[in-house]
Amino acid sequence: MLQSFHAQSTPEQGPPRLALLRKAMVEAGVDGFLIPRADAHQGEYVAPCDARLAWLTGFTGSAGFCVALDDRAAVFVDGRYRVQVRSQVASDFTPVNWPETSLSTWLKSEMGAGICGFDPWLHTVDEISQLRHPLLKSDITLHPTDNLVDQIWDDRPARPTPAFTAHPLKYAGEAHDEKRQRLAQELTARAAIITLPDSIAWLLNIRGTDIERNPVPQAFALLHDTGKVTLYALLGKTDALKDHLGPDIIVKPESDFINDLARMNGTVQIDPKSCPIAVTQALATGDADILHVPDPCILPKACKNATEIAGAKAAHLRDGVAMVNFLSWLDETAPLGQLTEIDVVKQLERFRQATGALLDISFETISGAGAHGAIVHYRVTEESNAQVIPGDLLLVDSGGQYVDGTTDITRTIGIGDPKPEHITCYTRVLQGMIAISRAQFPAGISGQHLDAIARLPLWAAGQDYDHGTGHGVGSYLSVHEGPQGLSRRATTPFARGMILSNEPGYYREGAFGIRIENLLVVVDAPVLAGADDRKMLTFDTLTYVPLDRRLIDVSALTDAERAWIEAYHQHTFDLLSQHVEGPTLRWLESACAPLTG
Amino acid sequence: MLQSFHAQSTPEQGPPRLALLRKAMVEAGVDGFLIPRADAHQGEYVAPCDARLAWLTGFTGSAGFCVALDDRAAVFVDGRYRVQVRSQVASDFTPVNWPETSLSTWLKSEMGAGICGFDPWLHTVDEISQLRHPLLKSDITLHPTDNLVDQIWDDRPARPTPAFTAHPLKYAGEAHDEKRQRLAQELTARAAIITLPDSIAWLLNIRGTDIERNPVPQAFALLHDTGKVTLYALLGKTDALKDHLGPDIIVKPESDFINDLARMNGTVQIDPKSCPIAVTQALATGDADILHVPDPCILPKACKNATEIAGAKAAHLRDGVAMVNFLSWLDETAPLGQLTEIDVVKQLERFRQATGALLDISFETISGAGAHGAIVHYRVTEESNAQVIPGDLLLVDSGGQYVDGTTDITRTIGIGDPKPEHITCYTRVLQGMIAISRAQFPAGISGQHLDAIARLPLWAAGQDYDHGTGHGVGSYLSVHEGPQGLSRRATTPFARGMILSNEPGYYREGAFGIRIENLLVVVDAPVLAGADDRKMLTFDTLTYVPLDRRLIDVSALTDAERAWIEAYHQHTFDLLSQHVEGPTLRWLESACAPLTG
Repeated sequence: MLQSFHAQSTPEQGPPRLALLRKAMVEAGVDGFLIPRADAHQGEYVAPCDARLAWLTGFTGSAGFCVALDDRAAVFVDGRYRVQVRSQVASDFTPVNWPETSLSTWLKSEMGAGICGFDPWLHTVDEISQLRHPLLKSDITLHPTDNLVDQIWDDRPARPTPAFTAHPLKYAGEAHDEKRQRLAQELTARAAIITLPDSIAWLLNIRGTDIERNPVPQAFALLHDTGKVTLYALLGKTDALKDHLGPDIIVKPESDFINDLARMNGTVQIDPKSCPIAVTQALATGDADILHVPDPCILPKACKNATEIAGAKAAHLRDGVAMVNFLSWLDETAPLGQLTEIDVVKQLERFRQATGALLDISFETISGAGAHGAIVHYRVTEESNAQVIPGDLLLVDSGGQYVDGTTDITRTIGIGDPKPEHITCYTRVLQGMIAISRAQFPAGISGQHLDAIARLPLWAAGQDYDHGTGHGVGSYLSVHEGPQGLSRRATTPFARGMILSNEPGYYREGAFGIRIENLLVVVDAPVLAGADDRKMLTFDTLTYVPLDRRLIDVSALTDAERAWIEAYHQHTFDLLSQHVEGPTLRWLESACAPLTG
Repeated sequence: MLQSFHAQSTPEQGPPRLALLRKAMVEAGVDGFLIPRADAHQGEYVAPCDARLAWLTGFTGSAGFCVALDDRAAVFVDGRYRVQVRSQVASDFTPVNWPETSLSTWLKSEMGAGICGFDPWLHTVDEISQLRHPLLKSDITLHPTDNLVDQIWDDRPARPTPAFTAHPLKYAGEAHDEKRQRLAQELTARAAIITLPDSIAWLLNIRGTDIERNPVPQAFALLHDTGKVTLYALLGKTDALKDHLGPDIIVKPESDFINDLARMNGTVQIDPKSCPIAVTQALATGDADILHVPDPCILPKACKNATEIAGAKAAHLRDGVAMVNFLSWLDETAPLGQLTEIDVVKQLERFRQATGALLDISFETISGAGAHGAIVHYRVTEESNAQVIPGDLLLVDSGGQYVDGTTDITRTIGIGDPKPEHITCYTRVLQGMIAISRAQFPAGISGQHLDAIARLPLWAAGQDYDHGTGHGVGSYLSVHEGPQGLSRRATTPFARGMILSNEPGYYREGAFGIRIENLLVVVDAPVLAGADDRKMLTFDTLTYVPLDRRLIDVSALTDAERAWIEAYHQHTFDLLSQHVEGPTLRWLESACAPLTG
């Protein structure tokens, strides 16, 4: 079982560790210290050895940070974690609503004056400059130091040692020498520093298992304008990759990275959004001119090539088979009222494992029954594990990592007889999901322009959801990737090959949650007979798994919406029916039958 | 007749004037000179004495600028004016596509090195700083000078002298001392410099007739943090307003403005988007600290109060009566095939004049028959005047300035029997217009998020339109006002009381144009029975004038769209039927009858 259901921390662990940290702060001569969730690579997941925030405070959320002062400490968390943080940290740590209260505002009011230390490998250039600016006229100075948590963390786990693996051309679709040459030609500087593991994974067609869920290699890289790459990684990680990497990729021990930076000259580009400030500090000791430019891998990585799209379709077909096995099992079992949320997670993972191709789950499966469905990022533990009760909705958001693609799917299922309000709200969410699926749009349009389309049916009823409509998804990489997105803040224009999730929702606190999620890929729209005008883009759906027709109010649909559902179910049946049998096939038949009413 | 149909310039006028300008450039010691369309107040219209661009080049568009060098000259125009400029300027002036080619790029390639002069009253702080930046590493310097066009313009018209008038409280809804106190309390600086005439008009409840179409006073003002105002205007303009202005508004001659600026100290705020750079130059000679902040009047002016909204409704009812008289006349007359585009403009203006309340038209009426309808900003002249031919579409975009409100309405009318493609495209445009009209949305949503909603039906057919879906509209002020808007670039969140146009379109070059425009006002959405969630905003329609039902493909509509049209026509009939009679009443009855099919 990949997923675990144990609470990973206790509030009691925090206070004695905080006391140790304060001693280290005195010795280091600082009055405060920042402990972020992030590691040097700014990913969503961190390795156990980098889980400093959780180790110190008990808070295990995927974003946030702690500030320790000599007499108080705060844990800053965003809207997703306001409830969770209160149950995970001891009273020595004050939860602070972030970004409503900024770190600088808090420091000015709670610290007043003094030196605040931070580990320059764990904070980006932008982060520190945005923090420094409002503190300029205060008596607080920011000071890079050694990591004081690491100094006191006696039983700190070792760095992950598994070797990197090659990501074969038959899945990557483009050899890494082609990618390197293509990017090198567009480089504005003599070299680009790349610190994001999924950028390195994409650029060199390699993968790693250094952290859970995201198959990325922990490494740093320099892409030179010659197309050559210097790769900095822990010793031994690339030993088996000599042939794959070839002569133009020079592998060096990670410890050389900082010394090499200090020796660079000419223009060197970094991405200030992700580059640790330790990197620019090291560059500044040498002769390099630092240019702030987005990581050159991000946009090309987002635009999947034909091989990656074919891989995504294969992965989604495979994952779809697991999903219909799961949904068929759920429909048979759940109405008996004996299942728990954890039973659901385990059974779904078993069906994914049964594909024989599952390399990891894409993230911890969200299995929220009844009121738990309204907690957007609910993760079931032994303590929270609720019964799946007939008459409730069950929200299951999950995905698989396969060598040919990453999946992410949410289905909300009515257990037993749904209530009228379930049907009304589910239908609105579905109408929004269909509106995005059907949209055609010209070049230049980005997520900020389309996000509202998914919300109109809910807005008309005075309802909404407090998350974006969708995020970018990698190709056997991170399930959350930029720059593409489907939200009010997503400004990168859609381009062919981008994979996105389409997942509107509705959450009634204390009662139920609804989310429906398919993955989409941006494609050229078919040229219409008689269309006199312009080329358009549109979305192709990757996810084909039945929607819960018992939750659809057919009378509320437009003809076009109904036709979309019928076509979706027909295509789902055509795709999946050859891969299932027996009761599951019969379930699929009935789940994909035409709507009635 | 307010509108004139004469070409206001000839290409022949340009070359001799350009020769004179070049002599003046030599005397002034500059190698280039900038001639913008704008005056010191950056409005859409300019007084005849400020129409320097048109006088020098012959180009009469509402945006653009000329650069004169010793051996060449260019006229920069945006997409709206690419065709027009070629017919209006002599070959001495090269049209340049702007903003595709920036002024700095052109200067670097065509001028190379030298001094480029400009009149600092006609260029904003942002404009000059954005121009200066890319020229920093070049051999071109920008240099403020006297206006060289004014030096050579012998028969330059005089400055407009009509007196300002008070805008009565019964239309303004808030006394100017309340407005001044309200704004003064939120001022970040000791004083705000206000250079936008419609800001001054709103703040002091005054209007002017200095320029056509926009009833604004040409003046500058200082709003002090005490709530007092210093108003700088030509002598005599405010003589009749002593009682209205009261003791807290000190009127000074316009010539004092620059000297007073040089004597200011403390923090002074300017809006760099609209403030002439001459103002900051003058401030810089004194002790003032200059703060860059948006003009404090812009947002409160955009959010109309209850009196202004009631006024807008009254103005739209009055204007609606004129429009149905016009449309009824058109339906009777046009199919005979004897009308021209100018006949249409004249007759419509007569109907507006017949209301007895028309103070001006809001802008030059656009009357585009057949292919002329595809020219988005078409303005008919004696030369272009086309016959309105049965079987064609006629696009009429027009509006009136009334003391209680400003109107702006577009109707596209099928003359005789419409063609199937007219009906198909009109229906799509109408569906987009209805989608905006029906939208409900939460706080925080702005035009950039809703613009796509109006385009989806066109996008689905590979079609689009190259203008925003809507613009802000003033209250007996400018028909185009910010910051509210309905376009991809409109980032100011919608707020109660904002008036906007909703005008999607479709243009097939050389064939026909379609645009349908209503004005809307942002209101609180009614709280729905059973809505469990959030407050929403929505739009109330201000414009009630029948849509051309002969152009609507009823079979393409959703139930909700059809219901919207029926309710719209029913409400139109209820509002207007008491104010028309005879054949117009019969026309209205039939135009508002339920759709069939």
